[in-house]
Amino acid sequence: MAFDPATLRYDARGLIPAIAQEEETGAVLMLAWMNADAVAETLATGRVTYWSRSRQSFWRKGESSGHVQRLVEMRVDCDRDCLLLIVDQTGPACHTNRHACFYTAIREGAEVEIMSPEE
Amino acid sequence: MAFDPATLRYDARGLIPAIAQEEETGAVLMLAWMNADAVAETLATGRVTYWSRSRQSFWRKGESSGHVQRLVEMRVDCDRDCLLLIVDQTGPACHTNRHACFYTAIREGAEVEIMSPEE
Repeated sequence: MAFDPATLRYDARGLIPAIAQEEETGAVLMLAWMNADAVAETLATGRVTYWSRSRQSFWRKGESSGHVQRLVEMRVDCDRDCLLLIVDQTGPACHTNRHACFYTAIREGAEVEIMSPEE
Repeated sequence: MAFDPATLRYDARGLIPAIAQEEETGAVLMLAWMNADAVAETLATGRVTYWSRSRQSFWRKGESSGHVQRLVEMRVDCDRDCLLLIVDQTGPACHTNRHACFYTAIREGAEVEIMSPEE
């Protein structure tokens, strides 16, 4: 069946969470949000575009930093209220210059840094 | 520093999204939600416990199905508003009996099933 972004389940703000996973490494890079227009634009362009909750505008990942995400495949979950984006990531995905946003871990009750910023 | 679940950023409902990734395969299994008590219980017991938005109660993953998730490691993202759970998954993670919840993909403009239920 042809895919229609309107068939996804958005929250009260009209948003759906999207997980970006790197195809090459399997690393979970980040989670951000999309509205229906961002879903459509991402599919149409192959460039991952989120919705910025703070700026209330499209967030074309990497537009200013150059750290773009190329969409390899978009997947939908059983409840249709979450997306998994398989991506090719150029440069670090995180605004802290780390490869991924999940850079601390809880180990033996303490939070420790497990990933350093890239050079 | 000792980890305090209160240092995470919860949404207006008091919830934070948690992504479960399988340690053995790297597969992204599902996304569900936790409140601060679910975060604390998951860390204390090593059994992944979400907060069920529909039932408004703890959702000890696998309690009825036996398809438990053992926590290997909890990670926190840069904005402290999303968790990544590295888990050992027993049986299928999805209530549809599939290994993961992300079982359709958008390919050439159409949504297609890419994962079958387990036997």
